[in-house]
Amino acid sequence: MPPRECSITDTLNLVGERWTLLVVRELSHGVRRFEGIARNTGAPRDILTTRLRRLEATGIVRREPYSAHPPRYEYHLTEAGEELGDVLLTLMAWGDRHLNAEDPPMRFQHACGHGFTAAVVCAHCGQQAREQLHSPTGRGVVTG
Amino acid sequence: MPPRECSITDTLNLVGERWTLLVVRELSHGVRRFEGIARNTGAPRDILTTRLRRLEATGIVRREPYSAHPPRYEYHLTEAGEELGDVLLTLMAWGDRHLNAEDPPMRFQHACGHGFTAAVVCAHCGQQAREQLHSPTGRGVVTG
Repeated sequence: MPPRECSITDTLNLVGERWTLLVVRELSHGVRRFEGIARNTGAPRDILTTRLRRLEATGIVRREPYSAHPPRYEYHLTEAGEELGDVLLTLMAWGDRHLNAEDPPMRFQHACGHGFTAAVVCAHCGQQAREQLHSPTGRGVVTG
Repeated sequence: MPPRECSITDTLNLVGERWTLLVVRELSHGVRRFEGIARNTGAPRDILTTRLRRLEATGIVRREPYSAHPPRYEYHLTEAGEELGDVLLTLMAWGDRHLNAEDPPMRFQHACGHGFTAAVVCAHCGQQAREQLHSPTGRGVVTG
């Protein structure tokens, strides 16, 4: 039997390789140049080059010139890339809670004026999502 | 300079390896036995064994016997493991939207009675999180 069909698998096939989501993180922080991304992620330069090319090929990142002589490029998130920010926020929330509870490495303020804590909710009613989902349907539903 | 200190990095160091989040997905669907997890993820058996051991060692999964002769085990998510469900929901939402928009592999109903769409919001005010965060502080804040 083939593996379960699933958008989680499909997304991880694009961004699940080591370093890729950290590249997206740096771009979301406005760090757009190769040197800065390399330093802040710790990714080996050859792997980082490969990751950036793949992110560009899959429409998550676009490259823009910032110098003509010599030719130099900056990297920007596309709209699809920006939307991966939701994945980053949940990874951060989990790590803050379970690995860095004493002293989270980074805190944000939300526009409402309060310190930010992420919650994943139902877009319709605004209530917590996890533990309140039921009746899965679709070709991804399989048993044991 | 060392890489940016970040809970995203720390979380990915625990669950960022290939197959690991798919194992958590299967457990969240109630698929608890090795054979089912292997089939539904497509993970090679030797790698799956390694991943399950690491998930147990890091407190994300616990193992419970379901047969004494021969000894056989089921895998369950701990509370920390259940909370990774938020990460899975955002990965699924992104893939549903950007890779499977025509025909999402799986849909859920939320307890409110509506078809489920995930949203990541500020736990305090309930408004969208992305694009509304500012003023990062902490040792993870670095420049270009």
